[in-house]
Amino acid sequence: MDKLKDYPVVISVPVQWGDQDSFRHVNNVMYIRWFESARIAYAERIGVWSLYDEEKIGLILASITCNYRRPVNYPDIVRVGSRISRIGRSSVTMEHKVLNGDGDVVADGDSVVVVYDYNHGRPYPLRQSMRAAISELEGKSF
Amino acid sequence: MDKLKDYPVVISVPVQWGDQDSFRHVNNVMYIRWFESARIAYAERIGVWSLYDEEKIGLILASITCNYRRPVNYPDIVRVGSRISRIGRSSVTMEHKVLNGDGDVVADGDSVVVVYDYNHGRPYPLRQSMRAAISELEGKSF
Amino acid sequence: MDKLKDYPVVISVPVQWGDQDSFRHVNNVMYIRWFESARIAYAERIGVWSLYDEEKIGLILASITCNYRRPVNYPDIVRVGSRISRIGRSSVTMEHKVLNGDGDVVADGDSVVVVYDYNHGRPYPLRQSMRAAISELEGKSF
Amino acid sequence: MDKLKDYPVVISVPVQWGDQDSFRHVNNVMYIRWFESARIAYAERIGVWSLYDEEKIGLILASITCNYRRPVNYPDIVRVGSRISRIGRSSVTMEHKVLNGDGDVVADGDSVVVVYDYNHGRPYPLRQSMRAAISELEGKSF
Repeated sequence: MDKLKDYPVVISVPVQWGDQDSFRHVNNVMYIRWFESARIAYAERIGVWSLYDEEKIGLILASITCNYRRPVNYPDIVRVGSRISRIGRSSVTMEHKVLNGDGDVVADGDSVVVVYDYNHGRPYPLRQSMRAAISELEGKSF
Repeated sequence: MDKLKDYPVVISVPVQWGDQDSFRHVNNVMYIRWFESARIAYAERIGVWSLYDEEKIGLILASITCNYRRPVNYPDIVRVGSRISRIGRSSVTMEHKVLNGDGDVVADGDSVVVVYDYNHGRPYPLRQSMRAAISELEGKSF
Repeated sequence: MDKLKDYPVVISVPVQWGDQDSFRHVNNVMYIRWFESARIAYAERIGVWSLYDEEKIGLILASITCNYRRPVNYPDIVRVGSRISRIGRSSVTMEHKVLNGDGDVVADGDSVVVVYDYNHGRPYPLRQSMRAAISELEGKSF
Repeated sequence: MDKLKDYPVVISVPVQWGDQDSFRHVNNVMYIRWFESARIAYAERIGVWSLYDEEKIGLILASITCNYRRPVNYPDIVRVGSRISRIGRSSVTMEHKVLNGDGDVVADGDSVVVVYDYNHGRPYPLRQSMRAAISELEGKSF
């Protein structure tokens, strides 16, 4: 069973040799880069990402957590899943799970992301169209 | 009042221009690198870090959290404080706070670190000497 | 015509959003990371890479050059080709070319790599088997 | 004698543990980040850097070379010197030298940088005031 089946957005990232540190496995910082790429892939899918160039509505990362479950080594290709577990007025909680090429969970965690109106310098209430896009992608209502 | 006065280990890191991303402030991933540098500085102070080369006793990062409070821009020099708030049998919880050059808190968070015996492939109970070194550094008993 | 047809080893790397800097295109440093990944892929193909774990025969980067031809933006997938243009006694010159998803050359350059014997602390003359593997891969003699 | 005495702009960068790779010394990519930081420090000194926000006159990196002379390890603080060795119509060649904390040369190289007018999409001829600023900083005429 695919451990990412409940994650509607999944990206693949090949491990580069230089992602490894002196302990000869992928450095903890890289997982946070993968989370970032996964968040952005999700934002693209719900039409939020393109709003920055159009209307200066962007995303701000409020917090992140990451649980490191297993080391990752070069060479490998990791898959990173994202799903939204909570929608607030101007923020969402996104959950991430990272699998290695063998399908083992190597990390999980979450990000809290705030939608932000850079024109007015304040959080931006999620539009109904954004909520609908998330619900459709997640296959559930919030 | 120095917001890092309760953090016995503090490092300074100059922001490099290239730490910034397309939003023109320091990328979220860099904060995790700063946390890492701060953890290692602490481990050096209590004599844990050198054990890896000597006895293959090392540190494994189990989890991390980071709350992003304010953007950071180049040029600046951040200061990152570390303190231990909990000591378990083989693990510690370390708290971090990051200040910018103006003394504003730009991030805080924590790391859970497991002391690991790479020779035997299992967690390593913290030695009494390590506990004593932490207590002395923190100015309190655990 | 594929501009990488004369490059026997080609890797693909997806651009991550966070590879971009404040100018909103991929930072110059990332190209050097791609070169590194390309070098290692080549070394794997000729059986040199595995020698480090087996015999402490490794590769040392002596120099690098990179000509930046065009900016690269997220999202994209770059392809990086490597070929060896010169074999010396203990070193090789490797040429790299990077294409974006449209097939445009975005960078080229080269690396000089020294084969090094870490046991004895000195350059290691390329074995005949290495030379043969390179000649076969390149389809020419040196 | 300070090996950087002929470099009018010098920056210091502390090595972070995470700058190291699996070979347990600083990864080759980090040197290119140091070069970047050094270039920008120079551009700030001659008043070019601020032109981007004001007039969309920016710098484009055309090429880079780096000769890796010695490994660098954590902990250390490197110093990176920059000087301009050639001024063309719209470009300059900048030379870099990197010293470790013991004063050994760990790398040298150069960058070719083009001054670029983003408003008109073309190279921007160096202003007389820029040439004068460089000459004064370098203590020689070009």
